[in-house]
Amino acid sequence: MSGWDLLIENVHLATLAGVEGVAGEGGEYGTVPDGAIAVRDGRIAWLGPRAEAAAHGSAAQVRDGHGCWLTPGLIDCHTHIVHAGNRSDEFEARLNGATYEDIARAGGGIMSTVRATRAADEEALLAQSLPRIRSLLAEGVTTLEIKSGYGLDLENEAKMLRVARRVAGELPVRVATTFLGAHALPPEYAGRADAYIDAVCAMIPALAREGLVDAVDAFCERIGFTAAQTERVFEAARQAGLPVKLHAEQLSDQGGAELVARYRGLSADHLEHLGEAGIAAMAASGTVAVLLPGAYYFLRDNTPPPVAALRAAGVPMAVATDNNPGTSPMTSLLLALNMACTLWRLTPREALAGATVHAARALGLHGDIGTLEVGKRADFALWRIARPADLCYAIGFNPCAAVVNGGVWRTPVAAA
Amino acid sequence: MSGWDLLIENVHLATLAGVEGVAGEGGEYGTVPDGAIAVRDGRIAWLGPRAEAAAHGSAAQVRDGHGCWLTPGLIDCHTHIVHAGNRSDEFEARLNGATYEDIARAGGGIMSTVRATRAADEEALLAQSLPRIRSLLAEGVTTLEIKSGYGLDLENEAKMLRVARRVAGELPVRVATTFLGAHALPPEYAGRADAYIDAVCAMIPALAREGLVDAVDAFCERIGFTAAQTERVFEAARQAGLPVKLHAEQLSDQGGAELVARYRGLSADHLEHLGEAGIAAMAASGTVAVLLPGAYYFLRDNTPPPVAALRAAGVPMAVATDNNPGTSPMTSLLLALNMACTLWRLTPREALAGATVHAARALGLHGDIGTLEVGKRADFALWRIARPADLCYAIGFNPCAAVVNGGVWRTPVAAA
Ligand SMILES: [Zn+2]
Ligand SMILES: [Zn+2]
Repeated sequence: MSGWDLLIENVHLATLAGVEGVAGEGGEYGTVPDGAIAVRDGRIAWLGPRAEAAAHGSAAQVRDGHGCWLTPGLIDCHTHIVHAGNRSDEFEARLNGATYEDIARAGGGIMSTVRATRAADEEALLAQSLPRIRSLLAEGVTTLEIKSGYGLDLENEAKMLRVARRVAGELPVRVATTFLGAHALPPEYAGRADAYIDAVCAMIPALAREGLVDAVDAFCERIGFTAAQTERVFEAARQAGLPVKLHAEQLSDQGGAELVARYRGLSADHLEHLGEAGIAAMAASGTVAVLLPGAYYFLRDNTPPPVAALRAAGVPMAVATDNNPGTSPMTSLLLALNMACTLWRLTPREALAGATVHAARALGLHGDIGTLEVGKRADFALWRIARPADLCYAIGFNPCAAVVNGGVWRTPVAAA
Repeated sequence: MSGWDLLIENVHLATLAGVEGVAGEGGEYGTVPDGAIAVRDGRIAWLGPRAEAAAHGSAAQVRDGHGCWLTPGLIDCHTHIVHAGNRSDEFEARLNGATYEDIARAGGGIMSTVRATRAADEEALLAQSLPRIRSLLAEGVTTLEIKSGYGLDLENEAKMLRVARRVAGELPVRVATTFLGAHALPPEYAGRADAYIDAVCAMIPALAREGLVDAVDAFCERIGFTAAQTERVFEAARQAGLPVKLHAEQLSDQGGAELVARYRGLSADHLEHLGEAGIAAMAASGTVAVLLPGAYYFLRDNTPPPVAALRAAGVPMAVATDNNPGTSPMTSLLLALNMACTLWRLTPREALAGATVHAARALGLHGDIGTLEVGKRADFALWRIARPADLCYAIGFNPCAAVVNGGVWRTPVAAA
């Protein structure tokens, strides 16, 4: 008989345990109908059929789940959500007939976000980012990855990463930070991409020393950095003891997935133009495919990532919002799940695994979060739904009834 | 000097006044920067630059809008939001490989919603519908159209319409009801569509007598009803003194738009397969084109409605959610605006006009709501945004700060 801090009963559990590696199969969610789940010291101490709870322990606090479904807290494993300004002016200008050239001439594009982010002080950057983050948290997100990449110099990249760290103090969410210095070439390095990569490589140990970096990312693309430049960044990450991930094959096949797999990277992200060699390399290295339907939708792309081939190869697929002002101004992870199903034919189980167990793996946190299993962190979302597929089926509906962060029960964060 | 009930100051007004008929032009929203708006007896009594307010009147209550944008309350002019059950099971089965035939054999499709809706009593139907409606209202919707069409007999159509009327008593929203008996052929009339249309025509005066019907609609399509059958429904509506609208040219060109224009109908809705003759007829009759991107997205359609031709012909375009369990389980009108811009290249101004002034016209309510003009009903939404285009640009973000219904200021309805 155990003493628990919290017992939640009268819930259907979707544990997502045991679904890893078989994401293409059947309709199972690791379900425990009419279940209960117990927490001690912020971790899952027991779970099982409700009727068996009393035989295993008793809790200081008992919560009635009112028949909700209880899943692992959702994990948004790819965002650029800390940034200043937005680009609705460009969105409108384009729809009113402006060309990309017109917009570039007017100072638009990613450099407008770099300028705004550099100009904002830490407080302003935090204040502008929190409402977007609240929108995610309102839908049961308990872990959030945040990338830098709009500072593009040591001072401003550090500022972005400090803001990302501060988010976890302001709101009930765990934050994983990713250094994305190799996101775009800043204007002061125009024509000198290799010199900028030197600077990025020098930033890595400096930022790592401050404890600001959990992983290192780059944008490997014709309009980004070459595979050779990316590899230099990965080498610097390896020397700093940091895992890597990569924006790969979004617009063309640059061999980025193979490269990140060679470094046993956590994830390759986007992947619309991923080929067979990249899939095989990812399968061999256990690198997660992070699928980002928001950008695909917003850019009106028509080359879907090779979902069937990834499934056949057993590559774990995660789904994330890619929140960013230029190509995915999306602040709903549930909507990303719907888009993954609707546009790319993921099954609802694959999509939900993609925002839980596989998203955890994409952050290197799968030992700690992403499933309901004894010993894992007690991060849960409770949902007023009839079945797990409802989370993927509805468009723009938030059925989140409660959230548990490290064993602390809360009503969901208000969206606005 | 006037005595006002309420003055809202420190807001930017997007009046949407004067944009009717020029929806294709420029970027103007009928803007009054740093404005104020006054209400008396639930109607707009004055609006203008904030600095001029004191010269025109004084108010019993003054509210600070904190620099928000203030627009007409949003209008969702096409929904089937009163229904029982959902169809996430079919959604999941299809993604797991089931064919439409498999699903039909298992009793799925629209008839599963008809069975569930017939089986639900009025209280249950209301209780199941309210959370979806709250989700719309949380985003500043102040007027909502609700169609019947899952009852398909007098008793159950009346039940749906009574529930629709009751919504306005439960939540701060104005409801316009539409009788859609000619939505699908109920199983008890299999092979006898003309006999069912007889029954529908007989329901119209019966339901109208109870005050349950504001307009009459039908589904004119190869898989719905013929133009001749639709016309019989329109004749019955005309005899009952009710305006008509039509689900037209969604899957094929049936001449529905011309037909509804001939009856000077309020709107023709969907229109993906609308041709030149239909556009000309709608332009001549002032019939609104109600565009429904949610269904287009969810069905992975790839024939967009002829937006450029509608714009060129001066046909007013509205945008709505089409909330329904089979083809558009969408409960966010802001997301519909984003889809209209992203997928169909409406400008943000066209999209916002489509959820305000033109949506009002699609309900025959443009004399009363849809713009900020003196004498119109004081239905407003206040938004924490930098510019009106933000409402269309963001994906899954709700910036609604406050709502005013008939002059009553409120915090927005909670979404869940
Ligand atoms: Zn990204
Ligand atoms: Zn409809």
